[in-house]
Amino acid sequence: MSVAIRHLDTRASDFEAEFNRVLHWSAETDAAIESRVAEILADVRQRGDAAVLEYTARFDGVTAAAMADLELGPEALQAALGQITPAQRAALEAAAARVRQYHERQLDACGRSWQYRDADGTLLGQKVTPLDRVGIYVPGGKAAYPSSVLMNAIPAQVAGVPEIVMVVPTPKGERNPLVLAAAAVAGAHRVFTIGGAQAVGALAYGTGTVPRVDKITGPGNAYVASAKRRVFGQVGIDMIAGPSEILVLADGSTPADWVAMDLFSQAEHDELAQSILLCPDAGYIAQVQAAIDRLLPGMPRRDVIRASLVGRGALIHTRSMAEACAISNRIAPEHLEISSSDPHRWEPLLKHAGAIFLGAFTSESLGDYCAGPNHVLPTSGTARFSSPLGVYDFQKRSSLIEVSEAGAHTLGPIAAELAYGEGLQAHAQAAELRLKPRIQ
Amino acid sequence: MSVAIRHLDTRASDFEAEFNRVLHWSAETDAAIESRVAEILADVRQRGDAAVLEYTARFDGVTAAAMADLELGPEALQAALGQITPAQRAALEAAAARVRQYHERQLDACGRSWQYRDADGTLLGQKVTPLDRVGIYVPGGKAAYPSSVLMNAIPAQVAGVPEIVMVVPTPKGERNPLVLAAAAVAGAHRVFTIGGAQAVGALAYGTGTVPRVDKITGPGNAYVASAKRRVFGQVGIDMIAGPSEILVLADGSTPADWVAMDLFSQAEHDELAQSILLCPDAGYIAQVQAAIDRLLPGMPRRDVIRASLVGRGALIHTRSMAEACAISNRIAPEHLEISSSDPHRWEPLLKHAGAIFLGAFTSESLGDYCAGPNHVLPTSGTARFSSPLGVYDFQKRSSLIEVSEAGAHTLGPIAAELAYGEGLQAHAQAAELRLKPRIQ
Repeated sequence: MSVAIRHLDTRASDFEAEFNRVLHWSAETDAAIESRVAEILADVRQRGDAAVLEYTARFDGVTAAAMADLELGPEALQAALGQITPAQRAALEAAAARVRQYHERQLDACGRSWQYRDADGTLLGQKVTPLDRVGIYVPGGKAAYPSSVLMNAIPAQVAGVPEIVMVVPTPKGERNPLVLAAAAVAGAHRVFTIGGAQAVGALAYGTGTVPRVDKITGPGNAYVASAKRRVFGQVGIDMIAGPSEILVLADGSTPADWVAMDLFSQAEHDELAQSILLCPDAGYIAQVQAAIDRLLPGMPRRDVIRASLVGRGALIHTRSMAEACAISNRIAPEHLEISSSDPHRWEPLLKHAGAIFLGAFTSESLGDYCAGPNHVLPTSGTARFSSPLGVYDFQKRSSLIEVSEAGAHTLGPIAAELAYGEGLQAHAQAAELRLKPRIQ
Repeated sequence: MSVAIRHLDTRASDFEAEFNRVLHWSAETDAAIESRVAEILADVRQRGDAAVLEYTARFDGVTAAAMADLELGPEALQAALGQITPAQRAALEAAAARVRQYHERQLDACGRSWQYRDADGTLLGQKVTPLDRVGIYVPGGKAAYPSSVLMNAIPAQVAGVPEIVMVVPTPKGERNPLVLAAAAVAGAHRVFTIGGAQAVGALAYGTGTVPRVDKITGPGNAYVASAKRRVFGQVGIDMIAGPSEILVLADGSTPADWVAMDLFSQAEHDELAQSILLCPDAGYIAQVQAAIDRLLPGMPRRDVIRASLVGRGALIHTRSMAEACAISNRIAPEHLEISSSDPHRWEPLLKHAGAIFLGAFTSESLGDYCAGPNHVLPTSGTARFSSPLGVYDFQKRSSLIEVSEAGAHTLGPIAAELAYGEGLQAHAQAAELRLKPRIQ
């Protein structure tokens, strides 16, 4: 039976309406979750460790006498490395090495301090420094992804963050050895087995045992997302992620099975994930539909994949590849595959995307795990204004200004004129005092 | 009469308690403002121009038949250039030129795309592109600062943003010619005379007349701050600013009057602004107190300055300059002056600050207006994790990945191993399909 994925055609008169229906997704904020999270955060802020211990017992079913009992030392992480298979360990280490190499290039490209001097000796520049301490949230349970540990911890490490604190809930005490092994490989400095809003609160405010961090990154459920939004300002946060998305631009030159499987690989995340194909070749779209129908029954996660494809997926027939690029820019997808024999022809037309995968061999899944670039990417159209997680997220900048005596004479009258215009006389006089002969 | 600014000494037994009292500031969220803003945003989202017109009439006392009447065309901005004095115009243009030059260096330092290839031909990189359209919020009324127009619009322009939309309320119809002249000098593309939460909503969602933007920057009152926080995710935002702060590290070599005036220049912003001096020389601290007492009566804004200094200021006697640096790092100030004869000795010890001003001639006010670096800086300790507004805030990045056929054979087994470990079989199979001989 054919999988009832939506077929759209840009030539159809109802295309705009249908297209907007496909795109519509809104993160409804749940008032009950909001108020519950506000309570938990206030409680953690006030009572610290005691509050975190109580919530951990209640929500995760993990009872401990003291927060120190919920910290995993280096031995526990090393032990996890021994519990996974040698093939898993080798894969983790190979992926980590490639992710590290890419992020070191990123550091070279934009992570260095710079300065210059004017002719009058005035120095101007910007100093780039790593954050002191960051927190990485790693989900527990069914969406526990060791690859996310690498993708969050390695850019922080490359940026030079001296202390990386990871939190990961262990519902009913169940630990995921692959996740802990990834923490060892990525070089997390401290690991606490706590989660939810209480873990976000512990990282944001600090408790007797959990140190206060400067920024919290990493995905989580609705409680975690709400808590991150609330502590923003107290600490930095990375982004609030929506459902994952893939958009495939296809000119028909890639085997249809490959494209079908790439659409599946997004759809298998969860039912809200979105997979879209844009293609000017109706015959090829039919081939992809046939491949979907043929391959789906063999997939272990077929129920999730089917629900995602039927609920949020679309195969869109466009007039041309150029039109497909224009539509892609309206979507600003998280993952964008240019499945074309000439991907470099189309790449310059694509303005907004978290990551762009060029050519038939570049499946999104290679990028998800080990090509090198980060897999934490802007979702829900936020690629219009935001970027993949990177080294720059674990650095901050300070402007440097050293005005020479000659410079003070050039700049003082300009500053004073504008300051008087704004009614800020002390600003003006601070500039003017520097124009007079100096008397100690 | 002596101004009752707080004196602290790091040697005192109650120093930690007193110091924490000085630092304590919390942005209490006002539930009434929050719910009012939520209502306004929902209304603007649904009813567009009509809602914006109604709120503008109600809150600003400006009545217009259509939103188009609230747009200022290029003639209006050019006319403002003619209304200000030639000295004001020259100062605006000189400041704009220096700000532009600095931000062009910033673009060179970190705003370019980059890529590299592995030995097997796999390409990896990052593409840097400007945002399509940004909104700049400019407050009206008493805190209308033309310098802020330059500081927000110029980095956007240097980044290459093709459309800069400025909003500025004109309470009771009163327009500030310096602000409009600054918009002309900085190159804003469109200007609407609207403000408050309704202007933030119009920019975030778009209306019939106001185009939807990708990011909103610029300062505002509690309603604007609350609205920006709420639309975050729908659009990008810069930051939620708290009261402005200056911290002066002094070794006693700068004329005490200069330092006193620098403390005033922060305090004159508003009563919540914070001015702190850290100095190891008790005699010099007494000189600064004497200068404050002598100079304050002559300042037009003396009431605001006094309230700020008495309420939130502090003169702190430290054991040494090194200790002063350590305390500065705990504060992470917005503006940090190293008022020392050897500022480069101390600069490397200073980890967290929005902007660092080196040496006696570098008054903060020179940086506020025309040295070149941005004056939009992280406040309330957020310099621990965030940066001055810059070109990078008006750009976003997309990862580029092109895996060669050989690369797919190296990376495929690694990705598949990790994907199976995470229970994501479609991810694994998408990688594995690329290992087989290609059949169309």
